[in-house]
Amino acid sequence: MTVEQLTEEERATWLSALPQWSLSRAGAAIERKFEFADFSEAFAFMTRVAMIAETRDHHPEWFNVYNRVEITLTTHDAGGLSLRDVKMARKIDALVA
Amino acid sequence: MTVEQLTEEERATWLSALPQWSLSRAGAAIERKFEFADFSEAFAFMTRVAMIAETRDHHPEWFNVYNRVEITLTTHDAGGLSLRDVKMARKIDALVA
Repeated sequence: MTVEQLTEEERATWLSALPQWSLSRAGAAIERKFEFADFSEAFAFMTRVAMIAETRDHHPEWFNVYNRVEITLTTHDAGGLSLRDVKMARKIDALVA
Repeated sequence: MTVEQLTEEERATWLSALPQWSLSRAGAAIERKFEFADFSEAFAFMTRVAMIAETRDHHPEWFNVYNRVEITLTTHDAGGLSLRDVKMARKIDALVA
């Protein structure tokens, strides 16, 4: 299945709807940093994200130390950002809304 | 509770007992990379490590993308490597032995 990279215009439109995410890797990815009360809460969040990732077959690149989680989303098959990243970001945002 | 940093000699001795871990951050940390069949296996491993971490109140710095997990252990309270990192590394090794 081909995954289409977002055009520059689509990217700008979607990013304005995801104010807590920022572009990284020269526009090829988006990232957001999260902070929780402690490791237990951070890992509980990661577990929920992992389930979303597995369900959608779209996996994050992420880093955790204690109560901090940094998530980067990109679509390797598209060589950059795709709608899959945007949809995933919205799902993740909903977990902490 | 004071956590003592390992001496250079202790570090060398312990590292020889942890052949799959390598020194990083100028000797202040150890790290190991793991590879699994897929994300599901990688995250299952991470969940087990998270439980060990929480039980010991000693948490890793770690990165995951799909089937790869990179773990870095250091003891912030000691300003470098301590026996807590060594013990944690052995517990983690036992999960994948």
